[in-house]
Amino acid sequence: MSDRKRVVIVGAGFGGMSAAKKLAGKNVEVILIDKRNHHLFQPLLYQVATADLSPAEIAWPTRSIFSHASNVSVFMGEVTGIDLPNRRVLSGEHQLEYDYLILATGAVTSYFGNDHWAGLASGLKNITEATNIRKRLLLAFEQAENSQDDAQKRRLLNFVVVGGGPTGVEMAGAIAELGKKALSDDFRRIDPRDARVILVEASDRLLGAFPQSLSDYTRQALESLGVEVRLGTPVSDITKQGVQIGEEFIPAANVIWGAGVQVLDLKDWTQKPADRGGRILVEPDLSIPDHDNVFVIGDAAHIPWGDGGTVPGIAPAAKQQGKYVAGRILDAMAGTKTPAFKYRHAGNLATIGRHRAVIDLNGFKLKGWLAWWFWGLAHIYFLIGMRAPALVMVQWVWSYLFRKKGARLITGEDKDNASAVVPAVRHEAR
Amino acid sequence: MSDRKRVVIVGAGFGGMSAAKKLAGKNVEVILIDKRNHHLFQPLLYQVATADLSPAEIAWPTRSIFSHASNVSVFMGEVTGIDLPNRRVLSGEHQLEYDYLILATGAVTSYFGNDHWAGLASGLKNITEATNIRKRLLLAFEQAENSQDDAQKRRLLNFVVVGGGPTGVEMAGAIAELGKKALSDDFRRIDPRDARVILVEASDRLLGAFPQSLSDYTRQALESLGVEVRLGTPVSDITKQGVQIGEEFIPAANVIWGAGVQVLDLKDWTQKPADRGGRILVEPDLSIPDHDNVFVIGDAAHIPWGDGGTVPGIAPAAKQQGKYVAGRILDAMAGTKTPAFKYRHAGNLATIGRHRAVIDLNGFKLKGWLAWWFWGLAHIYFLIGMRAPALVMVQWVWSYLFRKKGARLITGEDKDNASAVVPAVRHEAR
Repeated sequence: MSDRKRVVIVGAGFGGMSAAKKLAGKNVEVILIDKRNHHLFQPLLYQVATADLSPAEIAWPTRSIFSHASNVSVFMGEVTGIDLPNRRVLSGEHQLEYDYLILATGAVTSYFGNDHWAGLASGLKNITEATNIRKRLLLAFEQAENSQDDAQKRRLLNFVVVGGGPTGVEMAGAIAELGKKALSDDFRRIDPRDARVILVEASDRLLGAFPQSLSDYTRQALESLGVEVRLGTPVSDITKQGVQIGEEFIPAANVIWGAGVQVLDLKDWTQKPADRGGRILVEPDLSIPDHDNVFVIGDAAHIPWGDGGTVPGIAPAAKQQGKYVAGRILDAMAGTKTPAFKYRHAGNLATIGRHRAVIDLNGFKLKGWLAWWFWGLAHIYFLIGMRAPALVMVQWVWSYLFRKKGARLITGEDKDNASAVVPAVRHEAR
Repeated sequence: MSDRKRVVIVGAGFGGMSAAKKLAGKNVEVILIDKRNHHLFQPLLYQVATADLSPAEIAWPTRSIFSHASNVSVFMGEVTGIDLPNRRVLSGEHQLEYDYLILATGAVTSYFGNDHWAGLASGLKNITEATNIRKRLLLAFEQAENSQDDAQKRRLLNFVVVGGGPTGVEMAGAIAELGKKALSDDFRRIDPRDARVILVEASDRLLGAFPQSLSDYTRQALESLGVEVRLGTPVSDITKQGVQIGEEFIPAANVIWGAGVQVLDLKDWTQKPADRGGRILVEPDLSIPDHDNVFVIGDAAHIPWGDGGTVPGIAPAAKQQGKYVAGRILDAMAGTKTPAFKYRHAGNLATIGRHRAVIDLNGFKLKGWLAWWFWGLAHIYFLIGMRAPALVMVQWVWSYLFRKKGARLITGEDKDNASAVVPAVRHEAR
């Protein structure tokens, strides 16, 4: 092995990217592997899912972000295991030796053991899921326009969102805006404003990580957008016909799942203790037990924080951890000590429809229009941080102001779409 | 049936849209059916295929274009036949009665009877094909970066474009620019500039519909971009390994087909004479024989023109025909006569890479940079005509100037991508 140490980073999300950026230009070789070719700005996925943004506006090819960092190599590939004793990452029949390893593979949707719901209720964790949801939503209105059957129309125009955290709240608000505003003039036989959006949360309030007052505000704001909020009862079943919520059955052709995430693979790969969601229990310096050169960061890491809780799986946390671990590695190479990781929680935020948001900055609360502008600025700041072209931001603001319709495409195999559409256009007197 | 006449238009491409626009606001009911939900600006598809534009920048939801035309209804559905005697369009088990019918269903890729090539060499006629090509192109570079096998690397970095018309010329130039400019800094183990682009044309020159001098210029300009041009020999076979061109076999993992189109269905639906490509032989007023209330327009129509030729399958022609037929219908309803359709050929244009174009305006020829700017303005004019937001144009110009990378996404099922990628990253001394 050459004299320069090699850091292998698995995962090009917020955590992996932050680590790679800090190591760029340093005297270390960095290999960044991801099974996709792009870095994704996940917080805005719900806008792709509701046809407000195109995928290309929130994702950037990973390798081009590092094209001028000569010590950073990016590979598109899938890691299948880790050989800890021999310090190697495994990928199919191939191996990659490392001096330091950062596992930043993130989380995927969890159906709490009901994996058969996966085909019926899409999660929202990557671009493909977002565009599949988008297609489902847009097709629902198209199919309803074609339909002669009132019961079928009703099913098609019912949208159930499961999970009252930020993902569910943001999806519910955005779907309500889609039906009540963006699409409202475009149909002749249905009225898109007849669409029902039902948001289901098992606990007794929305946005459980936020203060109670903001939970209450969020509920009222969603209801003013026409969203029906169901609290205190979990979803007990999902079928092709609809969703069972306690005693209530809602016929629905569209179910979106934002109720849980889990971490796959790492427990198998490392054989280290993990929590119920699969997150690895890391040391104070984010390394795994007995291997101070292997780190787990981001959504995949279980880090005690606060009053018996853990560091939340949000973008700012992953970024802090990525930066910390990169610093830790540089210190280790230089022989200096690093203090334990200390998470600095800036706050939480969530949007409600197109014009409102709730923000909790460690007790300082903001809500409504002002909060939404703050949210907008925060995201622009984030996007600048990801070196997104200035134009993306201009376009984003522009499209928000003028309700760009361009992202409302149904694409994909025609046979998938055609079989889903009932072309039932009868003659009728007008 | 109500007193107001009903015009059914099948197909929301340039022809169908032009007809619908002319009939919007008139005293007639218009029903516009398309199997997709969007109108597509096909001339720029090659830029989606080479990751310069996102789909949403060249496609708009059809129904939102007509949202304020109360006499126009848009349905997403698939027509399966026509009952001419009873004046009905058939769609599965459903029927739609019409007073006038405009068939504007366009053309699809033709492999000249070698349909088994379809899975190996994608055409470029809709968004799904364009994004599939894009994925293929980007994955090729990713797989080459991962590969340990020189022969495999060579195959992956060979790109064969079949067909020397505008589609092939534009694709070849754009792929060359992708490898030699856009991606050139982004890889560490391969040099994207090693990519070979081979453009194959069976006849003795590129752009057969253009003057010879522009054909010659195009060849030189492509060669200066590094494209290898093969004239005078058709492709005789395409396999997973590559392409057979006469005696020459080129190992290639990437084959794009731009060599032919055909018209499906209409001959079966109408039982009227069609040419070898399936285009219906229409009357001077673009109606079909014996049914002066049924019209075929656009790529689907065979209209004699010029010296034994036919009206070309290009956007301006389809638009003229759409407008003409709408006028013909209004005249028929008013009892006035319409002169025969007369095609006014403005000219041909094609781009070569990012900075050059060739334009033939009925003998007045333009080439190079100036032609490219002219082409840009013409497309902006077209886009304005389609009521694209001003921002699309600003963005388009911006991205051209600054080589936006945002559209370079590989999406779709991970299992499709993962199986295609050989994650072979070996330790190696640097």
